[in-house]
Amino acid sequence: GVLGSGDFARSLAVRLVCSGFKVVVGSRNPKRKASLFPAAAEVTFQAEAVKKADVIFVAIFREHYSTLCDLADVLVGKILVDVSNNTEINHHKESNAEYLASLFPACTVVKGFNVVSAWTLQSGARDGNKQVLICSNNQEAKRIVAEIAQVMGFTPVDMGCMSSACEIENIPLRLLPAWKIPMFLALGLFLCFFTYNLIRQVIHPYIREQKNKLYKIPIEVVNTTLPCVSYVMLSLVYLPGVLAACSQLYYGTKYRRFPDWLDQWLQHRKQIGLLSFFCAALHAVYSLCLPMRRSHRYLLIETAVKQAVEKKMTIWVEEEVWRMEIYISVGIIALGLLSLLAITSLPSIANSLNWREFSFIQ
Amino acid sequence: GVLGSGDFARSLAVRLVCSGFKVVVGSRNPKRKASLFPAAAEVTFQAEAVKKADVIFVAIFREHYSTLCDLADVLVGKILVDVSNNTEINHHKESNAEYLASLFPACTVVKGFNVVSAWTLQSGARDGNKQVLICSNNQEAKRIVAEIAQVMGFTPVDMGCMSSACEIENIPLRLLPAWKIPMFLALGLFLCFFTYNLIRQVIHPYIREQKNKLYKIPIEVVNTTLPCVSYVMLSLVYLPGVLAACSQLYYGTKYRRFPDWLDQWLQHRKQIGLLSFFCAALHAVYSLCLPMRRSHRYLLIETAVKQAVEKKMTIWVEEEVWRMEIYISVGIIALGLLSLLAITSLPSIANSLNWREFSFIQ
Amino acid sequence: GVLGSGDFARSLAVRLVCSGFKVVVGSRNPKRKASLFPAAAEVTFQAEAVKKADVIFVAIFREHYSTLCDLADVLVGKILVDVSNNTEINHHKESNAEYLASLFPACTVVKGFNVVSAWTLQSGARDGNKQVLICSNNQEAKRIVAEIAQVMGFTPVDMGCMSSACEIENIPLRLLPAWKIPMFLALGLFLCFFTYNLIRQVIHPYIREQKNKLYKIPIEVVNTTLPCVSYVMLSLVYLPGVLAACSQLYYGTKYRRFPDWLDQWLQHRKQIGLLSFFCAALHAVYSLCLPMRRSHRYLLIETAVKQAVEKKMTIWVEEEVWRMEIYISVGIIALGLLSLLAITSLPSIANSLNWREFSFIQ
Repeated sequence: GVLGSGDFARSLAVRLVCSGFKVVVGSRNPKRKASLFPAAAEVTFQAEAVKKADVIFVAIFREHYSTLCDLADVLVGKILVDVSNNTEINHHKESNAEYLASLFPACTVVKGFNVVSAWTLQSGARDGNKQVLICSNNQEAKRIVAEIAQVMGFTPVDMGCMSSACEIENIPLRLLPAWKIPMFLALGLFLCFFTYNLIRQVIHPYIREQKNKLYKIPIEVVNTTLPCVSYVMLSLVYLPGVLAACSQLYYGTKYRRFPDWLDQWLQHRKQIGLLSFFCAALHAVYSLCLPMRRSHRYLLIETAVKQAVEKKMTIWVEEEVWRMEIYISVGIIALGLLSLLAITSLPSIANSLNWREFSFIQ
Repeated sequence: GVLGSGDFARSLAVRLVCSGFKVVVGSRNPKRKASLFPAAAEVTFQAEAVKKADVIFVAIFREHYSTLCDLADVLVGKILVDVSNNTEINHHKESNAEYLASLFPACTVVKGFNVVSAWTLQSGARDGNKQVLICSNNQEAKRIVAEIAQVMGFTPVDMGCMSSACEIENIPLRLLPAWKIPMFLALGLFLCFFTYNLIRQVIHPYIREQKNKLYKIPIEVVNTTLPCVSYVMLSLVYLPGVLAACSQLYYGTKYRRFPDWLDQWLQHRKQIGLLSFFCAALHAVYSLCLPMRRSHRYLLIETAVKQAVEKKMTIWVEEEVWRMEIYISVGIIALGLLSLLAITSLPSIANSLNWREFSFIQ
Repeated sequence: GVLGSGDFARSLAVRLVCSGFKVVVGSRNPKRKASLFPAAAEVTFQAEAVKKADVIFVAIFREHYSTLCDLADVLVGKILVDVSNNTEINHHKESNAEYLASLFPACTVVKGFNVVSAWTLQSGARDGNKQVLICSNNQEAKRIVAEIAQVMGFTPVDMGCMSSACEIENIPLRLLPAWKIPMFLALGLFLCFFTYNLIRQVIHPYIREQKNKLYKIPIEVVNTTLPCVSYVMLSLVYLPGVLAACSQLYYGTKYRRFPDWLDQWLQHRKQIGLLSFFCAALHAVYSLCLPMRRSHRYLLIETAVKQAVEKKMTIWVEEEVWRMEIYISVGIIALGLLSLLAITSLPSIANSLNWREFSFIQ
């Protein structure tokens, strides 16, 4: 059974029908709404629909839950699936599912399907996330809803008892929250270092010697900026650990909570580290592109011509050669090690490591 | 208990014995077959074996299921594990497990272990997939078989009720079905563009100016072909979404099914996108290799010598320098963004994103 | 309830209190220990604590389990969660959890939480592994402990019945065991080939022609060493499969166990292959860096100057050009194919492939 006639209710009915279930839709105006639903779904009055179904998807807004109170008698003993989402994180004190359960104590309420979009429901689970998070205080009801999800082509994930409902409802509202601060940090650092390098490599020679070095902006200035950002970010990964250790030594205990800012910082280390790796990798690619450029070619030929005209046969400077060889070889080793760190932060790799291995690699 | 004496039955018996289970094998000719099984397994007549075992692995072909009908009486109340596979996808209307269940209504049938190869069973789960997909209408039987799988070193995955059996039986027959069309598409595009570039860069100069540019085939022609393929593939990722939106606007509803070809196309977007990324990455590597080549070195030296002999000191062309700098820097940024898309298509990353985050990144 | 007052007991109490559970701690000296626990946790005598709690975390060492025997009466019917770890792999014949279960046959013992570090407990599950492996012979007890883990922010993983306890207890002691031999192998091979190449490229020219080529050590010698290591490692991936096939042909059966050394070798193939890929990838990066070096620039200019002075206009050697073009293009294709192999060894990709697809890609 499906209660509601919105977008989600319709998509849900489409998918349930496609998966071979017998669907009955409860609406307050079945005649007018019948055309919206697939032909195989029976559209009838709410009370009628509830009587015919064992599992009822409540696809209406939290604000209208109380309108279902008229159906309280027929709902007794049924499984209600709360599929609702909020518009803001932690909008209400109580999760929608817990609110529904408090309204209908004689029903078994299961939270689920809210992490799935109406579009995914309609077109079937294809790419992206196929998981349907389910929680309920009743094991049997949870199992029934999990099997429905399975038949519909999703992967049910048991999230335990009803107290997880709040967490499940917040999931679809999340937009990479852990990445926001690190992203702005990286952007800010990039702008600072870019300005500094621009002044140093382009504006300064122009003012002092009237040399036009504007062509350096797209690659060379960016390429000297990236490792600076990468280094600062990498140090910001390891600094909070040191601060936390200092704080523990200072207070003489490791059971004291860290101040909020340090706690936040500790939580964002992984993201800061990955952005540091991203900058380092871009720096590597930019550096590798340097000899491909026209400007590099022109400068090389000009030097050669100048040497040839002056009949200067040798220009080998041992110190410069060594500096470059060591610089490149250390750079490659550093990037190789950073890559290992980045690979171990993939969820499927991290899950196969115990914490001893994880800290060994770190 | 294991019924059957084929390759799979023998491997199953080996693994069960290794995992510490007491194994009894039922055969129609126990004397002759006993030597095939490990010494610790008892080989006896079928009826005998069934009596002694609670969980019976039916390792015989679907065609011979009916020969078990003589055992119907002793099989009452036992758990039958159907491990069979088909030779073709959707070969029979009904899955093997459902057919077995219909033959023996007094038994509890569990589908499982068919996704594991005989080789994996023998040598123990090592690399590749360790999952054993299990489905049954009986929770308790499913749990018992799942625990057997666990002890044998596999990861049991609950696939819900018996209606999933058909899907489970089709899995081992699958050979990257979603990749076939995109692969042929990429190959076709590559051949077309390669021919075009070959004519343009090698054959045309040879015919018109008798210049031998054959050395360009392995790297330069391939390197101008790859980005063409990559671009076309990338546009083929985003085109079907536009067509789908147009179709929805035209029909004024989003509940109408798309035509089959569009539906197929929408389903292959991820694979087309990944192949586009693969071509782009190869193009990057080929481009980076350009200055490493002998031919590049020779051309450079020849130009320098020519300039020196003509005493022409400067060859700087501002426009060419800028074109190259911008081309390279935009290329790196594009590859960086494509990498992010490719990383989010890893199953473990995709599972940790909700659809809002997924579409944000897209 | 928590029994014990060590580091793990305190961290456990902190996390349980944070997750909203009512916690009672049992200690032999509650007055002295009370200050160590969070204020919200009640610290009392062991017998008192056990009476008040339904689920009891036994956070004491295996050696002291027998001291709990005084509490046997009050423990009847309670769920005991064994969180202990060993200091050595397979230290005791029987796992700690099974030992605890044998001491208190009237209790339900659940193994769990031992894979989580005290630090993760305290600070909440953040990065790295969030999984809590749980096993027990009692389904209901396992479910209750799984839900507690869920509320605490971890991901419970059902590992089946008590016989898995030993495996679970060994997990935190593991330190990349499968990587040890392949790592030493790679290191050994690297040192051998490095020495050979050092003699050939640096020491020999120095002794014979007094030429100082020391600058080649950091990049060129390493870069000729890496592909040698990579090739040998790659052949070591495919060799054991051939040996295994030979052994099967020789003995005429595939049910005979392989000798231990071959079995070990077969098991390490994935790691050897990944190290081979790592060396190949490093070789690619080193090679790409070659034209970026000062020494490359100097040699190029010197050749150009020499040619210009001698008025030699052309230096094109067709054979050398072709050799380099083919060498590079085959190298790129090989690296591309190796990358595909490396990607399919990611756990989340490997889990989505069936063995037919896996062997197809191999």
